[in-house]
Amino acid sequence: MTDAKAPKSEQTRTLILETALRLFQERGYDKTTMRAIAQEAGVSTGNAYYYFSSKEHLVQGFYDRIAAEHQAAVRPVLDKETDLQARLAGVLKAWLDIAAPYHEFAAQFFKNAADPESPLSPFSPESEHAREAAIDVHREVLAGSKSKVAPELVDILPELMWLSQMGLVLYWVFDRSDGRERSHRLAERGAHLTTRGVSLARFRVLRPLVLEVHELFTDFLPGMAQTATARKR
Amino acid sequence: MTDAKAPKSEQTRTLILETALRLFQERGYDKTTMRAIAQEAGVSTGNAYYYFSSKEHLVQGFYDRIAAEHQAAVRPVLDKETDLQARLAGVLKAWLDIAAPYHEFAAQFFKNAADPESPLSPFSPESEHAREAAIDVHREVLAGSKSKVAPELVDILPELMWLSQMGLVLYWVFDRSDGRERSHRLAERGAHLTTRGVSLARFRVLRPLVLEVHELFTDFLPGMAQTATARKR
Repeated sequence: MTDAKAPKSEQTRTLILETALRLFQERGYDKTTMRAIAQEAGVSTGNAYYYFSSKEHLVQGFYDRIAAEHQAAVRPVLDKETDLQARLAGVLKAWLDIAAPYHEFAAQFFKNAADPESPLSPFSPESEHAREAAIDVHREVLAGSKSKVAPELVDILPELMWLSQMGLVLYWVFDRSDGRERSHRLAERGAHLTTRGVSLARFRVLRPLVLEVHELFTDFLPGMAQTATARKR
Repeated sequence: MTDAKAPKSEQTRTLILETALRLFQERGYDKTTMRAIAQEAGVSTGNAYYYFSSKEHLVQGFYDRIAAEHQAAVRPVLDKETDLQARLAGVLKAWLDIAAPYHEFAAQFFKNAADPESPLSPFSPESEHAREAAIDVHREVLAGSKSKVAPELVDILPELMWLSQMGLVLYWVFDRSDGRERSHRLAERGAHLTTRGVSLARFRVLRPLVLEVHELFTDFLPGMAQTATARKR
């Protein structure tokens, strides 16, 4: 996947990242050292550290790549559909398709990422870049749909939609069905449920509950408050 | 904790269980064998297998014990309080207190239990006994409160309340705050949120959403459907 037209430094960066992902998959994340990654990629250890200052940074590089591929893959559905449920289901299923090659890696790597205090957690301050890109997709899912949304929920619903995507990711990590068929069905069902929730959030009596759910997540997950603050800047 | 007045077989069972928990904590769950547990407990390996046919069964024994201790510990709050939020917060905080000695064990053991297909998952068919006992507590939380509940939600809400308790357990596993102080605050906040949700579920327009959330969980978590079926028997 190394692009010959990209600048040399970009090519080296991609080479190191792809070598790391292959070694993580072959040897396990915990057992793979930066030195082994550099050696296998044919660069000096110092050079590898220049691009990624730790193994954790390599995983952030992986998250960023998945997020970028996902942003490209959702264009057809987001440019065409105006129905919220179809937009959301399309976005979730595009993610499952992009992540498919990494399923085995994700399962062995999960125990490192499940800890919210780990830099590898999707909720960590270190993951903010990839998280913001992923939440941006959900902002567009909502903004481009014909669903009406209360002004006080416009900023909050995309973060909750992203959280429900994290629920799908957790389910997918352990999904052993052929072609992750069960995860695809969960994506469809989740999109239906979320659309119903968004539709009910029109009712004034329900909005405080939505706000309280969101507040609970931002108060208890380390990186979420930071994301919420970044949104207000 | 071995009770001198209990029958001999009950004493042996308790001895094996407590030895296993200690070894899991000292050596890690994966590295502890049934043979080592038997040896350390001073019984034959055959005898250990008579009481627990696998390591997984030892963990079920652990779950059952926690559930039984919890059922006893919630008596004061459930006999006294009629306010739903106070009942629920009391029940959640009693669980945190009972589980406190096992926090270190829970963290290292988590990766085995997080997989919904594992017999150690709280959602597995194998965990049904402990899960039913835990859901029973939530049935009583709701039934003994002065909150009004729609008839079609009476069976469903306790299972959803138990699911939110599983969310708290997940948070607690990774909670490194002194005395798990953050988990205690999450228990309070979660009880407030759930009470608000139960109160809103009086509105007819919201009930289909609650039913759909519950249906999603029973369709996608292996043991939940079984629990739902058992409830109807």
